[in-house]
Amino acid sequence: MDISTVNSLCYEDFVDTFGNVVERGPLIAAAVWSHRPFSNLSELEAHISDFIDKLPESGKEGILRCHPDLAGRDLQRGTLTRESQDEQSQAGMASLSPAETTRMHQLNADYKKRFGFPFVICAKMSDKAGILRQLAERSGNDLSQERECAISEVKKICCLRLRNLVLSETRNKL
Amino acid sequence: MDISTVNSLCYEDFVDTFGNVVERGPLIAAAVWSHRPFSNLSELEAHISDFIDKLPESGKEGILRCHPDLAGRDLQRGTLTRESQDEQSQAGMASLSPAETTRMHQLNADYKKRFGFPFVICAKMSDKAGILRQLAERSGNDLSQERECAISEVKKICCLRLRNLVLSETRNKL
Repeated sequence: MDISTVNSLCYEDFVDTFGNVVERGPLIAAAVWSHRPFSNLSELEAHISDFIDKLPESGKEGILRCHPDLAGRDLQRGTLTRESQDEQSQAGMASLSPAETTRMHQLNADYKKRFGFPFVICAKMSDKAGILRQLAERSGNDLSQERECAISEVKKICCLRLRNLVLSETRNKL
Repeated sequence: MDISTVNSLCYEDFVDTFGNVVERGPLIAAAVWSHRPFSNLSELEAHISDFIDKLPESGKEGILRCHPDLAGRDLQRGTLTRESQDEQSQAGMASLSPAETTRMHQLNADYKKRFGFPFVICAKMSDKAGILRQLAERSGNDLSQERECAISEVKKICCLRLRNLVLSETRNKL
Protein backbone atom coordinates (compact mmCIF):
# COMPACT_ATOMS: atom_id res chain seq x y z
CA MET A 1 0.00 0.00 0.00
CA ASP A 2 1.68 3.26 -1.03
CA ILE A 3 0.64 6.69 0.23
CA SER A 4 -1.46 7.43 -2.86
CA THR A 5 -3.46 4.30 -2.10
CA VAL A 6 -3.89 5.45 1.50
CA ASN A 7 -5.07 8.84 0.27
CA SER A 8 -7.58 7.28 -2.11
CA LEU A 9 -9.39 5.29 0.60
CA CYS A 10 -12.96 6.29 1.41
CA TYR A 11 -13.44 6.88 5.13
CA GLU A 12 -15.05 3.47 5.67
CA ASP A 13 -12.04 1.65 4.20
CA PHE A 14 -9.62 3.99 5.97
CA VAL A 15 -11.24 3.27 9.34
CA ASP A 16 -11.40 -0.46 8.57
CA THR A 17 -7.66 -0.37 7.84
CA PHE A 18 -6.36 2.04 10.49
CA GLY A 19 -9.08 1.86 13.15
CA ASN A 20 -6.87 -0.05 15.57
CA VAL A 21 -3.49 1.66 15.13
CA VAL A 22 -4.54 3.23 18.41
CA GLU A 23 -6.12 0.37 20.33
CA ARG A 24 -9.93 0.38 20.03
CA GLY A 25 -9.70 3.92 18.67
CA PRO A 26 -11.58 4.04 15.36
CA LEU A 27 -12.64 7.58 16.29
CA ILE A 28 -9.01 8.72 15.99
CA ALA A 29 -8.45 7.15 12.57
CA ALA A 30 -11.82 8.53 11.47
CA ALA A 31 -10.81 12.00 12.67
CA VAL A 32 -7.43 12.17 10.92
CA TRP A 33 -9.05 11.16 7.61
CA SER A 34 -10.17 14.82 7.54
CA HIS A 35 -6.52 15.81 6.98
CA ARG A 36 -5.85 13.75 3.86
CA PRO A 37 -4.09 13.83 1.48
CA PHE A 38 -0.98 12.88 3.43
CA SER A 39 2.33 13.50 1.71
CA ASN A 40 3.84 10.48 3.43
CA LEU A 41 3.34 8.04 6.27
CA SER A 42 5.08 10.30 8.77
CA GLU A 43 2.52 13.01 8.13
CA LEU A 44 -0.35 10.63 8.83
CA GLU A 45 1.41 9.58 12.02
CA ALA A 46 1.97 13.21 13.01
CA HIS A 47 -1.75 13.96 12.64
CA ILE A 48 -2.61 11.05 14.94
CA SER A 49 -0.04 12.24 17.48
CA ASP A 50 -1.35 15.80 17.28
CA PHE A 51 -4.95 14.66 17.76
CA ILE A 52 -3.95 12.76 20.90
CA ASP A 53 -1.90 15.66 22.27
CA LYS A 54 -4.84 18.05 21.96
CA LEU A 55 -7.21 15.83 23.95
CA PRO A 56 -7.92 16.87 27.52
CA GLU A 57 -6.32 14.77 30.25
CA SER A 58 -9.51 12.72 30.56
CA GLY A 59 -9.30 11.92 26.85
CA LYS A 60 -5.71 10.72 27.15
CA GLU A 61 -6.74 8.57 30.10
CA GLY A 62 -9.65 7.33 27.97
CA ILE A 63 -7.22 6.15 25.31
CA LEU A 64 -5.22 4.29 27.93
CA ARG A 65 -8.37 2.66 29.39
CA CYS A 66 -9.16 1.21 25.96
CA HIS A 67 -5.98 -0.89 26.23
CA PRO A 68 -6.03 -4.41 27.66
CA ASP A 69 -3.97 -5.50 30.64
CA LEU A 70 -0.68 -7.11 29.78
CA ALA A 71 -1.02 -10.85 30.39
CA GLY A 72 -4.56 -10.15 31.58
CA ARG A 73 -8.00 -11.67 31.15
CA ASP A 74 -8.29 -10.84 27.43
CA LEU A 75 -5.09 -12.72 26.68
CA GLN A 76 -6.32 -15.68 28.72
CA ARG A 77 -9.76 -15.63 27.08
CA GLY A 78 -8.45 -15.06 23.56
CA THR A 79 -10.39 -11.79 23.25
CA LEU A 80 -7.48 -9.46 22.54
CA THR A 81 -7.46 -7.50 19.28
CA ARG A 82 -5.28 -9.22 16.67
CA GLU A 83 -2.59 -6.56 17.02
CA SER A 84 -2.43 -6.82 20.83
CA GLN A 85 -2.38 -10.61 20.63
CA ASP A 86 0.66 -10.51 18.32
CA GLU A 87 2.45 -7.91 20.41
CA GLN A 88 1.84 -9.57 23.78
CA SER A 89 2.78 -13.00 22.44
CA GLN A 90 5.98 -11.72 20.89
CA ALA A 91 6.97 -10.13 24.21
CA GLY A 92 6.49 -13.43 26.02
CA MET A 93 3.28 -12.49 27.82
CA ALA A 94 1.58 -15.67 26.62
CA SER A 95 4.25 -17.87 28.15
CA LEU A 96 4.80 -16.56 31.66
CA SER A 97 5.61 -19.00 34.42
CA PRO A 98 3.03 -19.26 37.23
CA ALA A 99 5.26 -17.12 39.44
CA GLU A 100 5.68 -14.49 36.73
CA THR A 101 1.92 -14.48 36.10
CA THR A 102 1.22 -13.88 39.77
CA ARG A 103 3.75 -11.05 39.90
CA MET A 104 2.40 -9.46 36.71
CA HIS A 105 -1.18 -9.60 37.97
CA GLN A 106 -0.23 -8.07 41.29
CA LEU A 107 1.81 -5.26 39.71
CA ASN A 108 -0.97 -4.56 37.19
CA ALA A 109 -3.58 -4.44 39.94
CA ASP A 110 -1.48 -2.06 42.04
CA TYR A 111 -0.78 0.14 39.00
CA LYS A 112 -4.46 0.37 38.03
CA LYS A 113 -5.48 1.15 41.57
CA ARG A 114 -2.92 3.95 41.69
CA PHE A 115 -3.56 5.52 38.27
CA GLY A 116 -7.04 4.47 37.13
CA PHE A 117 -5.80 3.12 33.81
CA PRO A 118 -3.85 0.05 32.73
CA PHE A 119 -0.09 -0.15 32.27
CA VAL A 120 0.63 0.45 28.58
CA ILE A 121 4.00 -0.27 27.02
CA CYS A 122 5.17 -0.87 23.48
CA ALA A 123 5.68 -4.59 24.03
CA LYS A 124 7.36 -5.09 20.66
CA MET A 125 10.21 -2.85 21.77
CA SER A 126 10.68 -4.74 25.02
CA ASP A 127 10.66 -8.23 26.48
CA LYS A 128 9.40 -10.02 29.56
CA ALA A 129 12.12 -8.83 31.88
CA GLY A 130 12.02 -5.29 30.55
CA ILE A 131 8.24 -5.10 30.88
CA LEU A 132 8.29 -6.29 34.48
CA ARG A 133 11.07 -3.85 35.32
CA GLN A 134 9.27 -0.92 33.64
CA LEU A 135 5.99 -1.80 35.33
CA ALA A 136 7.64 -1.73 38.74
CA GLU A 137 9.59 1.47 37.99
CA ARG A 138 6.79 3.47 36.39
CA SER A 139 4.46 2.64 39.29
CA GLY A 140 6.53 5.16 41.25
CA ASN A 141 5.69 8.06 38.90
CA ASP A 142 3.12 10.67 39.79
CA LEU A 143 -0.13 10.67 37.80
CA SER A 144 0.81 13.46 35.41
CA GLN A 145 4.24 11.98 34.59
CA GLU A 146 2.82 8.54 34.12
CA ARG A 147 -0.06 9.67 31.90
CA GLU A 148 2.45 11.28 29.55
CA CYS A 149 4.79 8.31 29.72
CA ALA A 150 1.97 5.89 28.86
CA ILE A 151 0.74 8.11 26.00
CA SER A 152 4.26 8.13 24.54
CA GLU A 153 4.08 4.31 24.55
CA VAL A 154 0.69 4.49 22.76
CA LYS A 155 2.42 6.52 20.05
CA LYS A 156 5.23 3.97 19.69
CA ILE A 157 2.66 1.19 19.36
CA CYS A 158 0.80 3.27 16.78
CA CYS A 159 3.98 3.92 14.81
CA LEU A 160 4.79 0.20 14.56
CA ARG A 161 1.21 -0.79 13.71
CA LEU A 162 1.05 1.89 10.99
CA ARG A 163 4.34 0.82 9.47
CA ASN A 164 3.30 -2.80 9.57
CA LEU A 165 0.10 -1.99 7.69
CA VAL A 166 1.48 0.38 5.12
CA LEU A 167 5.03 -0.75 4.53
CA SER A 168 4.77 -4.49 4.79
CA GLU A 169 4.65 -5.01 1.03
CA THR A 170 6.19 -1.80 -0.25
CA ARG A 171 9.00 -0.98 2.10
CA ASN A 172 10.74 1.24 -0.42
CA LYS A 173 7.82 3.28 -1.60
CA LEU A 174 7.33 5.56 1.39
CA MET B 1 -28.80 0.26 37.95
CA ASP B 2 -28.86 3.36 40.15
CA ILE B 3 -26.25 6.11 40.05
CA SER B 4 -24.32 4.71 43.01
CA THR B 5 -23.92 1.46 41.07
CA VAL B 6 -22.70 3.43 38.05
CA ASN B 7 -20.19 5.26 40.26
CA SER B 8 -18.91 2.02 41.72
CA LEU B 9 -18.00 0.47 38.37
CA CYS B 10 -14.31 -0.09 37.64
CA TYR B 11 -13.31 1.44 34.31
CA GLU B 12 -13.41 -1.92 32.53
CA ASP B 13 -17.03 -2.53 33.54
CA PHE B 14 -17.93 1.10 32.89
CA VAL B 15 -16.55 0.91 29.33
CA ASP B 16 -18.19 -2.48 28.78
CA THR B 17 -21.51 -0.93 29.83
CA PHE B 18 -21.33 2.53 28.25
CA GLY B 19 -18.77 2.03 25.47
CA ASN B 20 -21.39 2.29 22.74
CA VAL B 21 -23.63 5.10 24.03
CA VAL B 22 -21.70 7.02 21.40
CA GLU B 23 -21.47 4.59 18.50
CA ARG B 24 -18.12 2.76 18.44
CA GLY B 25 -16.81 5.30 20.94
CA PRO B 26 -15.38 3.42 23.93
CA LEU B 27 -12.73 6.15 24.17
CA ILE B 28 -15.44 8.65 25.13
CA ALA B 29 -16.94 6.47 27.85
CA ALA B 30 -13.43 5.67 29.07
CA ALA B 31 -12.63 9.39 29.21
CA VAL B 32 -15.67 10.50 31.20
CA TRP B 33 -14.99 7.80 33.82
CA SER B 34 -12.33 10.27 35.01
CA HIS B 35 -15.14 12.58 36.19
CA ARG B 36 -16.95 10.14 38.47
CA PRO B 37 -18.66 10.22 40.89
CA PHE B 38 -21.68 11.54 39.01
CA SER B 39 -24.48 12.97 41.12
CA ASN B 40 -27.04 11.78 38.60
CA LEU B 41 -27.49 10.51 35.08
CA SER B 42 -27.77 14.01 33.64
CA GLU B 43 -24.32 14.84 34.94
CA LEU B 44 -22.82 11.80 33.24
CA GLU B 45 -24.59 12.81 30.05
CA ALA B 46 -23.32 16.39 30.38
CA HIS B 47 -19.72 15.17 30.67
CA ILE B 48 -20.11 13.17 27.45
CA SER B 49 -21.61 16.17 25.70
CA ASP B 50 -18.84 18.43 26.97
CA PHE B 51 -16.15 16.00 25.83
CA ILE B 52 -17.64 15.96 22.33
CA ASP B 53 -17.99 19.75 22.20
CA LYS B 54 -14.33 20.26 23.04
CA LEU B 55 -13.09 18.01 20.24
CA PRO B 56 -11.67 19.73 17.18
CA GLU B 57 -13.82 19.68 14.03
CA SER B 58 -11.92 16.63 12.79
CA GLY B 59 -12.79 14.81 16.01
CA LYS B 60 -16.47 15.57 15.63
CA GLU B 61 -16.31 14.33 12.06
CA GLY B 62 -14.49 11.27 13.37
CA ILE B 63 -17.41 10.52 15.69
CA LEU B 64 -19.82 10.79 12.77
CA ARG B 65 -17.66 8.51 10.59
CA CYS B 66 -17.91 5.79 13.24
CA HIS B 67 -21.66 5.61 12.55
CA PRO B 68 -23.11 3.20 10.02
CA ASP B 69 -25.18 4.26 7.02
CA LEU B 70 -28.91 4.14 7.58
CA ALA B 71 -30.28 1.13 5.71
CA GLY B 72 -26.71 0.49 4.51
CA ARG B 73 -24.42 -2.49 4.12
CA ASP B 74 -24.09 -3.19 7.86
CA LEU B 75 -27.86 -3.53 8.20
CA GLN B 76 -27.94 -5.83 5.17
CA ARG B 77 -25.02 -7.91 6.43
CA GLY B 78 -26.21 -8.03 10.04
CA THR B 79 -23.01 -6.37 11.27
CA LEU B 80 -24.58 -3.36 12.99
CA THR B 81 -23.98 -2.85 16.69
CA ARG B 82 -26.92 -4.13 18.74
CA GLU B 83 -28.05 -0.60 19.54
CA SER B 84 -27.99 0.55 15.91
CA GLN B 85 -29.80 -2.60 14.82
CA ASP B 86 -32.63 -1.91 17.28
CA GLU B 87 -32.85 1.76 16.34
CA GLN B 88 -32.78 1.25 12.59
CA SER B 89 -35.31 -1.59 12.74
CA GLN B 90 -37.65 0.42 14.91
CA ALA B 91 -37.53 3.30 12.43
CA GLY B 92 -38.47 0.97 9.59
CA MET B 93 -35.04 0.89 7.93
CA ALA B 94 -35.10 -2.91 7.83
CA SER B 95 -38.36 -2.99 5.88
CA LEU B 96 -37.93 -0.46 3.09
CA SER B 97 -39.55 -1.15 -0.26
CA PRO B 98 -37.15 -1.60 -3.20
CA ALA B 99 -37.94 1.94 -4.36
CA GLU B 100 -37.33 3.38 -0.87
CA THR B 101 -34.08 1.43 -0.61
CA THR B 102 -32.86 2.84 -3.90
CA ARG B 103 -33.78 6.38 -2.86
CA MET B 104 -32.12 5.98 0.55
CA HIS B 105 -28.91 4.64 -0.98
CA GLN B 106 -28.77 7.48 -3.51
CA LEU B 107 -29.41 10.18 -0.90
CA ASN B 108 -26.86 8.61 1.47
CA ALA B 109 -24.25 8.44 -1.28
CA ASP B 110 -24.83 12.08 -2.28
CA TYR B 111 -24.69 13.17 1.36
CA LYS B 112 -21.42 11.34 2.05
CA LYS B 113 -19.86 12.71 -1.12
CA ARG B 114 -20.82 16.23 -0.06
CA PHE B 115 -19.83 16.07 3.64
CA GLY B 116 -17.34 13.21 4.04
CA PHE B 117 -19.34 11.55 6.82
CA PRO B 118 -22.57 9.57 6.96
CA PHE B 119 -26.02 10.98 7.64
CA VAL B 120 -26.70 10.56 11.37
CA ILE B 121 -30.13 10.99 12.86
CA CYS B 122 -31.73 9.84 16.09
CA ALA B 123 -33.86 7.20 14.35
CA LYS B 124 -35.86 6.43 17.49
CA MET B 125 -37.25 9.96 17.45
CA SER B 126 -38.26 9.72 13.80
CA ASP B 127 -39.74 7.33 11.25
CA LYS B 128 -39.15 6.33 7.67
CA ALA B 129 -40.84 9.34 6.12
CA GLY B 130 -39.22 11.75 8.56
CA ILE B 131 -35.78 10.28 7.99
CA LEU B 132 -36.06 10.53 4.21
CA ARG B 133 -37.31 14.11 4.47
CA GLN B 134 -34.52 15.13 6.89
CA LEU B 135 -31.89 13.46 4.74
CA ALA B 136 -33.03 15.44 1.71
CA GLU B 137 -33.34 18.70 3.64
CA ARG B 138 -30.08 18.52 5.59
CA SER B 139 -28.15 17.74 2.40
CA GLY B 140 -28.66 21.42 1.58
CA ASN B 141 -26.78 22.62 4.69
CA ASP B 142 -23.22 23.87 4.52
CA LEU B 143 -20.53 21.71 6.11
CA SER B 144 -20.27 23.63 9.37
CA GLN B 145 -24.05 23.72 9.94
CA GLU B 146 -24.43 20.08 9.08
CA ARG B 147 -21.55 18.92 11.30
CA GLU B 148 -23.22 20.60 14.27
CA CYS B 149 -26.64 19.30 13.32
CA ALA B 150 -25.35 15.73 13.05
CA ILE B 151 -23.49 16.02 16.38
CA SER B 152 -26.71 17.17 18.05
CA GLU B 153 -28.30 13.95 16.74
CA VAL B 154 -25.39 11.94 18.19
CA LYS B 155 -26.21 13.48 21.57
CA LYS B 156 -29.89 12.56 21.28
CA ILE B 157 -28.94 8.98 20.43
CA CYS B 158 -26.54 8.97 23.39
CA CYS B 159 -29.23 10.29 25.73
CA LEU B 160 -31.68 7.54 24.79
CA ARG B 161 -29.03 4.79 24.94
CA LEU B 162 -27.89 6.00 28.37
CA ARG B 163 -31.42 6.11 29.73
CA ASN B 164 -32.17 2.71 28.31
CA LEU B 165 -29.12 1.27 30.07
CA VAL B 166 -29.46 2.96 33.42
CA LEU B 167 -33.17 3.49 33.87
CA SER B 168 -34.66 0.38 32.36
CA GLU B 169 -35.14 -1.31 35.70
CA THR B 170 -35.11 1.62 38.08
CA ARG B 171 -37.03 4.34 36.35
CA ASN B 172 -37.82 6.13 39.58
CA LYS B 173 -34.41 6.09 41.17
CA LEU B 174 -32.64 8.72 39.10
